Amino acid sequence: MEEAELIARIEHSLARRGLATGNGILTGIGDDCAIFRPRSGEDLLFTTDQMHHGRHFTAATPPRHVGHTALARSLSDIAAMGGRPLFSIVALASNDPAWIDGFYAGLLALASKHHVILAGGDLASTPVPSCDVMVCGAVARGQALLRSKARPGDTLYVSGPLGAAALALEKGSPRLPVPQLAFSQTLYAQGVRCAMDLSDGLSIDLRRLCLASGVCAHLDQVPRARGASLHHALHGGEDYALLFTARRPIPHAIPIGRIAQGQPGAVFYAGEPLPPLGWDHYHEPCT
Amino acid sequence: MEEAELIARIEHSLARRGLATGNGILTGIGDDCAIFRPRSGEDLLFTTDQMHHGRHFTAATPPRHVGHTALARSLSDIAAMGGRPLFSIVALASNDPAWIDGFYAGLLALASKHHVILAGGDLASTPVPSCDVMVCGAVARGQALLRSKARPGDTLYVSGPLGAAALALEKGSPRLPVPQLAFSQTLYAQGVRCAMDLSDGLSIDLRRLCLASGVCAHLDQVPRARGASLHHALHGGEDYALLFTARRPIPHAIPIGRIAQGQPGAVFYAGEPLPPLGWDHYHEPCT
Repeated sequence: MEEAELIARIEHSLARRGLATGNGILTGIGDDCAIFRPRSGEDLLFTTDQMHHGRHFTAATPPRHVGHTALARSLSDIAAMGGRPLFSIVALASNDPAWIDGFYAGLLALASKHHVILAGGDLASTPVPSCDVMVCGAVARGQALLRSKARPGDTLYVSGPLGAAALALEKGSPRLPVPQLAFSQTLYAQGVRCAMDLSDGLSIDLRRLCLASGVCAHLDQVPRARGASLHHALHGGEDYALLFTARRPIPHAIPIGRIAQGQPGAVFYAGEPLPPLGWDHYHEPCT
Repeated sequence: MEEAELIARIEHSLARRGLATGNGILTGIGDDCAIFRPRSGEDLLFTTDQMHHGRHFTAATPPRHVGHTALARSLSDIAAMGGRPLFSIVALASNDPAWIDGFYAGLLALASKHHVILAGGDLASTPVPSCDVMVCGAVARGQALLRSKARPGDTLYVSGPLGAAALALEKGSPRLPVPQLAFSQTLYAQGVRCAMDLSDGLSIDLRRLCLASGVCAHLDQVPRARGASLHHALHGGEDYALLFTARRPIPHAIPIGRIAQGQPGAVFYAGEPLPPLGWDHYHEPCT
């Protein structure tokens, strides 16, 4: 199959779903660059996540799941900053047209749900598939939620129970991540200034938040998904729940502990130091 | 090596070169997303290019050259639209710290030259290296140069002689591409509305320009780089010269033919149809 034919098929899917232009994208696929016209009064958020065969998925993973997950991971980063997603730029490498079709089917189904424009990308023919999905989002000027804004005295919250993804991975049936976009939109208005998404596991991600804010954290209780062990909930990756701090109670969120003064980056669970056992991209996953 | 250590080394390089923030990037590496504040009155341009081991480079290619080339290809797309580059988001996959260091050395040397901020990215540990480099640029509102703006009667121009890259590739010593950023900045003011960069070869790229504009093209003469054959100049890829059209003479550019009414996408050289033999990413390169 020729590149032009593949691109024509992708463009056809986009047109059918209304994802070719909009959200500020004036010109999408087809020229040297996509053209975007920003709205005044907004900051823009940028994030990218790659997935590689043998590292993030296997030959047994349906390509639809790879497409969904690749976009969901970047959307979760937009949610973590309190943003609305606008558009995506997708680099895809594969030499299998059926795999490519499956990938885009999964990606575009999720893009439709959140009205994310597919503004452009790059195709390469390689024997081993991989992808890199960049997402741009918008947030009211100066209102992005940051990892560095946790303050001693804040309560720590998560947006839902943890460990379901690690449990599912252990059982050999990985879950499709669900980015918490709607939930995160309400947080700034409720006084939340500090958030991140839980991609690598609570123990390592909370350590990163504490390092960025120059604080330490005490965990009291961690809500577990049905069937998940405490280890799954504390150290398992890929949950994509939001972790955030606030001074006052937040509806529909679960308090798990508090931020305190102390050694920056230190995390305690039930009074004992909690080692950061979550996923480091240069080590093996713990789950 | 741990991911945190690798990222700390990259951040140190950025700080030393003044490429961590600026050009509208308020927060770069270190949070879930980079934060960018657009200037009013500007459109933003987005492009991405990936490079894969075995497809775009080999084990013999110095990683510095991969880093340079990956950024240069996206910068050339920004130049093709008449834009100024602002920042880059880099996804890199490798499990070799020395290769990663070399890649960033090459990429950051070119980024310094054009003051491109490295705003964020993603690292993955894979046995086979690959990268995807996204660049955002800015252009005055409504002034982007488009492939679709060629009109019958326009003269066709290139920014320099062609075929040097194909010749060098044939000799086994690939050239480092030079994006035509300064040159492209002057074109809109001179009345140029239609441009693209020559990445895949004049014959296939000019066909794409003609298809986008609904016109055909007649080539009279094509300037060859020293030592390059006519085949190199007509069909060789990776030159990264600019191809554009204008109504009046453009200083420092070389006229090569004219745009005419006729079958959209048709290209003629010395009166004969010219087949599109350049590089299709889903076929083998012609050079």
